[in-house]
Amino acid sequence: MQQTTPLFNKITLVGVGLIGSSLGRAIIYKKLAREVVGLEQNENLVARVMATKCVTSATTKVDEAIKNTDLVILCVPMGQYDRVMADITPAMASEKRDIILSDVGSVKGSAVAVMEKYINGTKNIKLIPAHPIAGTEFSGPESGMAHLFQDMFCIITPPDGSDKTAYDKVVALWSSIGAQVQQMTVQHHDEVLAITSHLPHLIAYTITGTARTFENNIKNVNSQEVIKYSAGGWRDFTRIAASDPVMWRDIFLNNKDAVMKQLEHFKQDLNKLTTAMADNDGATLENWFADTKTIRQALPSVSQQVDEQKQKEKFYDAK
Amino acid sequence: MQQTTPLFNKITLVGVGLIGSSLGRAIIYKKLAREVVGLEQNENLVARVMATKCVTSATTKVDEAIKNTDLVILCVPMGQYDRVMADITPAMASEKRDIILSDVGSVKGSAVAVMEKYINGTKNIKLIPAHPIAGTEFSGPESGMAHLFQDMFCIITPPDGSDKTAYDKVVALWSSIGAQVQQMTVQHHDEVLAITSHLPHLIAYTITGTARTFENNIKNVNSQEVIKYSAGGWRDFTRIAASDPVMWRDIFLNNKDAVMKQLEHFKQDLNKLTTAMADNDGATLENWFADTKTIRQALPSVSQQVDEQKQKEKFYDAK
Repeated sequence: MQQTTPLFNKITLVGVGLIGSSLGRAIIYKKLAREVVGLEQNENLVARVMATKCVTSATTKVDEAIKNTDLVILCVPMGQYDRVMADITPAMASEKRDIILSDVGSVKGSAVAVMEKYINGTKNIKLIPAHPIAGTEFSGPESGMAHLFQDMFCIITPPDGSDKTAYDKVVALWSSIGAQVQQMTVQHHDEVLAITSHLPHLIAYTITGTARTFENNIKNVNSQEVIKYSAGGWRDFTRIAASDPVMWRDIFLNNKDAVMKQLEHFKQDLNKLTTAMADNDGATLENWFADTKTIRQALPSVSQQVDEQKQKEKFYDAK
Repeated sequence: MQQTTPLFNKITLVGVGLIGSSLGRAIIYKKLAREVVGLEQNENLVARVMATKCVTSATTKVDEAIKNTDLVILCVPMGQYDRVMADITPAMASEKRDIILSDVGSVKGSAVAVMEKYINGTKNIKLIPAHPIAGTEFSGPESGMAHLFQDMFCIITPPDGSDKTAYDKVVALWSSIGAQVQQMTVQHHDEVLAITSHLPHLIAYTITGTARTFENNIKNVNSQEVIKYSAGGWRDFTRIAASDPVMWRDIFLNNKDAVMKQLEHFKQDLNKLTTAMADNDGATLENWFADTKTIRQALPSVSQQVDEQKQKEKFYDAK
């Protein structure tokens, strides 16, 4: 049998939660690197990460994690980018070889700004930001799955004049673990995600939380009743409102302008429907609802329907 | 083998769409009536209904449908209650026997008002309104399923001084086809449903429809991109935004006061989160999101998780 050279010799995952540990599992399974090192903040996390076998080694020591690495991927919440970059940039800069720096952050504008601030023109650090659109409502290294990215989009947002070799290797990595790679500018990415992901999460967080305040607001309905009868529609919102609180705090703080802009459109549309309701304008309501039914019917053919069983089979069956 | 007397001799379903045809299928399978007659508006609908075998007969003739019936259930959108009650009340009033009149409408205040207006004290018509909290995003007699109500709640809202025998028989019917029967006052029902079902639908309809207006609103993002990247969260809203447009038009027109009241709470909460975002107040966001994660975790134990396979097995296995 032919022994092929892996894509990377050593990959460093900075932060090994749901996404980091899924990446590690996928990289190991697909033999894309000889070494996958997890950099964590304390020994307790190192032990948890090692127990899941999602990396080949884990450490709290920056120098050990960065030494001889080819690719560093930030997999921490965006609120930690500043601290992490302050920690690892000197070690990256002192390496003689080229190092690709990438991340998985959900907002690219602020992520790129922080990373570029620290790189500050350092020649051997090649920045190729990425954002895999994948996840579950669970957190931590124990929740990771090697097939998490199978058939899901991964958006790469290379800065102007970025290194072609580095770009190709990041694309090859994500393609090799099953993702569909797309390229966008940073700004376009943040606008697309504001409407497809960030605003829906804000709305879902809001309406799910509104149930909490019921005991005070409404004399006759308590939150237990809301939960009991949630099959009527409310429950559809709660899945995404169970996403990681810290990650989402950072997303809203980092993409507020784009989210606010989309929120204005949402509020205008909500007012339009509310006014129709108040005015007994059934035609406006019915037309709007018929339109949204059409939109739903268009979905399965073009969007990614998550079918975990299929993802699993495809990931493990692929050569 | 012992031949037991069915609960009803004849049941009349006025309107045989998703809910009516599911009821018919369940009643026939559980042998709860000797006859299940579907009353429809035209011969084309009669033929479609008969083709699905969800009733024992179907007709456009009111007299034929009502003659000798024991139970009439309105299964039409609420906007048709007025027309339907005008059509069938004389036939019901001219019967010598007692007739139970029930319905499946999603708003009980307006439904009861219309039905009582036509009954107008007629002694032999015993009103027992009901609302099964069950459905799919599909419509029409072909979409019906006998097990649709298995393990789902059915809320009965008997008026003050309603007939005890009639009440017991309606409870027995829903229990026999697998539903969990609950009792509420009309007003309480409408308030509970406003928050658990109607407001979530309004929000989902709004945000799903907002995608339609993108080509005009946002220079850089088009609706095809919204659909393409909808796995990021937006898609979670589209399922319930594909519900029947006419049914939901009528729900909003008939429960507008309760929906508006809940909408105010939602808007206040949305402003609270938006302000936190604008003010860089990460703690408020994180606390809110941690709370909603807890709410979601509380759900599976107390709310009804729809598991169609389990519903099916339970429905067909039960004696």
